[in-house]
Amino acid sequence: MRTILIIGAGRSASSLIRYLLEKSEKEQLHLVIGDLSLALAQKKTNNHPNATAIALDIFDAQQRQQAIQNATIVISMLPAHLHIQVAKDCITYKKHLVTASYVSDAMQELDAEAKANNLIFMNEIGLDPGIDHMSAMKVIDEVKEKGGEMILFESFCGGLVAPESDTNLWNYKFTWAPRNVVLAGQGGAAKFIQEGTYKYIPYCNLFRRTEFLQVEGYGRFEAYSNRDSLKYRSVYGLDDVLTLYRGTIRRVGFSKAWNMFVQLGMTDDSYIMENSENMSYREFVNSFLPYHPTDSVEIKTRLILKIDQDDIMWDKLLELDLFNPNKKVGLKNATPAQILEKILTDSWTLQPDDKDMIVMYHKFGYILNGKKEQIDSKMVCLGDDQTHTAMAKTVGLPVAMATLLILNGKITTPGVQLPISKEVYQPILKELESYGVLFHETAMPYLGYNPDKEFS
Amino acid sequence: MRTILIIGAGRSASSLIRYLLEKSEKEQLHLVIGDLSLALAQKKTNNHPNATAIALDIFDAQQRQQAIQNATIVISMLPAHLHIQVAKDCITYKKHLVTASYVSDAMQELDAEAKANNLIFMNEIGLDPGIDHMSAMKVIDEVKEKGGEMILFESFCGGLVAPESDTNLWNYKFTWAPRNVVLAGQGGAAKFIQEGTYKYIPYCNLFRRTEFLQVEGYGRFEAYSNRDSLKYRSVYGLDDVLTLYRGTIRRVGFSKAWNMFVQLGMTDDSYIMENSENMSYREFVNSFLPYHPTDSVEIKTRLILKIDQDDIMWDKLLELDLFNPNKKVGLKNATPAQILEKILTDSWTLQPDDKDMIVMYHKFGYILNGKKEQIDSKMVCLGDDQTHTAMAKTVGLPVAMATLLILNGKITTPGVQLPISKEVYQPILKELESYGVLFHETAMPYLGYNPDKEFS
Repeated sequence: MRTILIIGAGRSASSLIRYLLEKSEKEQLHLVIGDLSLALAQKKTNNHPNATAIALDIFDAQQRQQAIQNATIVISMLPAHLHIQVAKDCITYKKHLVTASYVSDAMQELDAEAKANNLIFMNEIGLDPGIDHMSAMKVIDEVKEKGGEMILFESFCGGLVAPESDTNLWNYKFTWAPRNVVLAGQGGAAKFIQEGTYKYIPYCNLFRRTEFLQVEGYGRFEAYSNRDSLKYRSVYGLDDVLTLYRGTIRRVGFSKAWNMFVQLGMTDDSYIMENSENMSYREFVNSFLPYHPTDSVEIKTRLILKIDQDDIMWDKLLELDLFNPNKKVGLKNATPAQILEKILTDSWTLQPDDKDMIVMYHKFGYILNGKKEQIDSKMVCLGDDQTHTAMAKTVGLPVAMATLLILNGKITTPGVQLPISKEVYQPILKELESYGVLFHETAMPYLGYNPDKEFS
Repeated sequence: MRTILIIGAGRSASSLIRYLLEKSEKEQLHLVIGDLSLALAQKKTNNHPNATAIALDIFDAQQRQQAIQNATIVISMLPAHLHIQVAKDCITYKKHLVTASYVSDAMQELDAEAKANNLIFMNEIGLDPGIDHMSAMKVIDEVKEKGGEMILFESFCGGLVAPESDTNLWNYKFTWAPRNVVLAGQGGAAKFIQEGTYKYIPYCNLFRRTEFLQVEGYGRFEAYSNRDSLKYRSVYGLDDVLTLYRGTIRRVGFSKAWNMFVQLGMTDDSYIMENSENMSYREFVNSFLPYHPTDSVEIKTRLILKIDQDDIMWDKLLELDLFNPNKKVGLKNATPAQILEKILTDSWTLQPDDKDMIVMYHKFGYILNGKKEQIDSKMVCLGDDQTHTAMAKTVGLPVAMATLLILNGKITTPGVQLPISKEVYQPILKELESYGVLFHETAMPYLGYNPDKEFS
């Protein structure tokens, strides 16, 4: 039996654990599921004979080291900033490690030691980062092998609500950390390259500079720019590419509506509002509007946001019950962003029968034999239920698959890794297909970054 | 003879030195003017027999301590963060200290020691802070002495170009640190109280939420909100006031035009632009606009900012030569804010014959005998020339006057002080009048914060 220690039994571990338990008989796997909450860990074992639950406090060094020492390989599903102690123990006890998180500087510093010990520290092997790396590198490698020269790469991903559960005017529900949705795009201008020119979008314009995306069978989406589109330029071997852009996918109209919160200042997380606990939703809105002795909060909102009488933007605000004078915020010393998150959670929480949806969309532009070509690659994944959500599947399955491939000696390159090499992405993308995570690639004439052409 | 050590002989020291030299015979004063640049210090002595120039490097402890030891009183016109070593030496050698800067935490910590040594550390006695404190406290004290209860205080100040030198479409030139103008309002939401309600304005809306101010003989101005209007609430004894607002004065239309830079992202100081040195002004603008294969930078700018064909906003941009493809930025590793400052400096630098103007405007609302009343207090000061600018006079004269009052035992309260008590503001405001710094106070019915009423 090979022992897989899984640290962290939260939402994103469900599909990961199910996958490994299904393979446990044939692959001779024993799962040790450790969580601060023993009950949660036990629930995730599903009473499977090949799984053991343990209470695990990762701040308890002895407990943590004991568990790692007993494992053949370690999966850390902890929040990103908590991986590092686990990683250091993995060096000490010579264990491979798999995480779905971005490689931190501290993690990167372990590269030499991991290599020296022939250990594989596979990171960023969830959805985004993860499936985005793999599905992108597959096409980029294919283009280069044909002798093509990459000139454009655009990549978009979004966690959304499935069409059958899409019941509100925003066409959006929280399928992942709401706080990250509220803070999205903050902390600096978005930066990218279009046709050889560096471009910058400030936060106050971010949600007004979207572009449309069409996904067959699912209709039209839109995307706003991510903070740093250039992060993987060298990693992907795209140093000379003319267009490099990464974005977040929403349903059409979401960004324009979201921009109302940005303009009012409701997404600000940098200061605490006076009297936040006893403030009503209506008072919260009024805090961002000029005083007037008689004009209503509604008319002031319409005026400042220039919302016409028949504009659906207005109904989107009403749907959130933003102007309710009786609903209290009920949060002590809260920032505007925290209060907005609270208000949105009232409306945007997934209901028990709701399903989520992941959409990923890449555009690859290249020159082959002097001719400009383009490939668009699209993936839509729907959640099964509230446990095996599209998010849990797309984050957890690649982690599980990579873990098994490492155990079985199919992934062999040691060091702190991303899933950008063939030995990783080929078997995993292939296997993901049978779980409904399937990319449709379409060849077409080169469109480039030119939204006008796209619809001409 | 009493020796006044003046540290820092920059622009704002001119009127201060002139005032003290004019009084030097009668008041038995000897000025020691110390600056890193001996030439600059010498120039400021104007060959007056009662002035000596010295080269003074304030980072040279021995030099600094020697100069302070030899003085009767010390004036520090250094940048605010450099006062603290001077202040500590003033404790050591038992010297009074006068500065025009905000009281830093480090300065405040010297309060007990200053008091124990019966030393006066008078700060914030320039224009803003300075004359604003004095002219506000005068009226607030008068209202309270009459038995009135303060309900509103709004205070506005701006450094502008004098009407006779107002020659561009922005009605603005740089009369003080350009960098502060470019960065104005950044770093957090503006916070204030209007009629009992806390209000917040995010940066992206700051320059669209202005209010108008009328100054007889000078026409209409506008003001945008300062970051923290509540800073002096307790200091001024206004804890129960219903409206508290501080703002920065510009000519009408400036803020709406400035907002174009904010919306494009050109005031951002948080990141360095690629290739900033060799970038043309036109390329700088294009960095903030979407790529298009054929549309001009001009048409893209008009579209994103929604500038109609006949909108003067457009001419304001043209006047700055923003679309020039031949003018190079010429700054290495520059932020957008640094580049914008460079571009604006081309157009907004004061010409040799240009004069500046300071405008200050306070509104005081109060209840007296059950009736709501209002007093508006306004001051306009014009520069004499490029040396004795309105800024140099309004910053330097109160510093000089306070210094003499301390020397002559007219200001006696020890400790780290602001000019908010009668012993300070009464003689200084009175004397400032003879230098043309004169407040016109007008009693009127209470208007409150209600821009509509103001013009009905």
